[in-house]
Amino acid sequence: MVPKVFFISDGTAITAEVFGHAVLSQFPIEFEQVTIPFVETIKKAEEVTKQINDSFITTGVQPLVFHSIVKQEIRDIITASEGANYDFLNTFVAPLEEQLGIKAAPKVHRTHGKTNGAYENRIQAINFSLDNDDGQTMKHMDEADIILLGVSRCGKTPSSLYLSMQFGIKAANYPFVEDDMDNLKLPEALKRNKKKLFGLTIDPMRLHEIRQGRMQNSRYSSLRQCRIEVKEVEMLYKKERIPFISTTNHSVEEISAKILDITGLERHMF
Amino acid sequence: MVPKVFFISDGTAITAEVFGHAVLSQFPIEFEQVTIPFVETIKKAEEVTKQINDSFITTGVQPLVFHSIVKQEIRDIITASEGANYDFLNTFVAPLEEQLGIKAAPKVHRTHGKTNGAYENRIQAINFSLDNDDGQTMKHMDEADIILLGVSRCGKTPSSLYLSMQFGIKAANYPFVEDDMDNLKLPEALKRNKKKLFGLTIDPMRLHEIRQGRMQNSRYSSLRQCRIEVKEVEMLYKKERIPFISTTNHSVEEISAKILDITGLERHMF
Repeated sequence: MVPKVFFISDGTAITAEVFGHAVLSQFPIEFEQVTIPFVETIKKAEEVTKQINDSFITTGVQPLVFHSIVKQEIRDIITASEGANYDFLNTFVAPLEEQLGIKAAPKVHRTHGKTNGAYENRIQAINFSLDNDDGQTMKHMDEADIILLGVSRCGKTPSSLYLSMQFGIKAANYPFVEDDMDNLKLPEALKRNKKKLFGLTIDPMRLHEIRQGRMQNSRYSSLRQCRIEVKEVEMLYKKERIPFISTTNHSVEEISAKILDITGLERHMF
Repeated sequence: MVPKVFFISDGTAITAEVFGHAVLSQFPIEFEQVTIPFVETIKKAEEVTKQINDSFITTGVQPLVFHSIVKQEIRDIITASEGANYDFLNTFVAPLEEQLGIKAAPKVHRTHGKTNGAYENRIQAINFSLDNDDGQTMKHMDEADIILLGVSRCGKTPSSLYLSMQFGIKAANYPFVEDDMDNLKLPEALKRNKKKLFGLTIDPMRLHEIRQGRMQNSRYSSLRQCRIEVKEVEMLYKKERIPFISTTNHSVEEISAKILDITGLERHMF
């Protein structure tokens, strides 16, 4: 019997999901997961409670209820359900109030809302990363916070987007392509922004697999070409003393977090 | 005195950050925030402990330490620091072990690592959203999970990207432009995917402000033009019975969560 988990919030429920997944990932079993965001009225809260209780009755297994609910009257209704309640937010708010010597001033939609700090900056960062993806223009390199380098399909674009989306960082990226390989060098716009450069590399065999998925049996996807490109690019990184990491066994989150860790680049929003 | 907060993890520290921000956003004060990811060795843990203790000595204010550390030997070192510890992960793991009747099997890098379920699907979803942004091609509309519609600069692109990045959903988007306005209708590729269509709208005044930022004093950015486009597009949504929401006062997270809530679209990863 796969246990059922409800993620419930009077906001987006994204915090409840992110944290719930972190906790559940510590267990070696599967869960059936249901997210219910925007539980903002008593009526809705009562409906959700019924859904939780029905699940218990139908399956005979007590459902887990992970919630991050700001409004007390909503929280009280959900907590009174038959589910096993895990209150992500308030478990820590009370001890923090004590520690800080100030009362919490709960507001819905503060975590993932537009009121949250530099929201406009972040949209600008996302637009910047899109406009400056894949070396489509070199005009704005001076405005970038960071410029990711690498061969085609090594993970530049998802990493740039994650950096802008999650951290509000203006991340450009520049690809080294086949034609560059004979005489690999940094374009002028990158040279003068040398401190912003960060290299990505990848295992040639993995690159070969990825490229085969895009363009099967082409020169571009051949293992030979992948080997040449990766070797040349890594030599350039070393020659120019550009810090670099391998994306081979890492997720976009891990790559992005490593880039921030190595460069010391500041997060522009949270 | 602004309290200092450390977000610490032996992984990316993204969970610690997301959850920490959710909790801290309930307090009406500023915090100085420092993230330290990849604390994977005893040596690094001891360095971090020294950093926490030094902060206490220098400022006289006890720092807050929010951590989500999987490896016990690392956690023990951090917890022994002079900071006020808030252990996001383990506060819930022990009661969950009891509830589920099984032991946790902690693994580092499971939450935001590549081992986390449908990672490849997600990268494919991100690439799909990029390739099918802004109506640049209609070829792949049949493969989309959802197709966002709207006028230029109403929030289609960031919302599509967030849906793919956060939820692994293949989100395409299609813009209605000035030339369409005289005779607004759905292109054939959208008509045959009618169930996937979701409209975005925006307050014309807000749209005017956003467009002014891109192209000042143009016809495109004029309040008159913004009014016409928004009116026409909303009429189309109503005529074609396409569900739609306004992006005016909402963040990308809120828009995305609302779209999932309204459409019932399934998350493809977490």
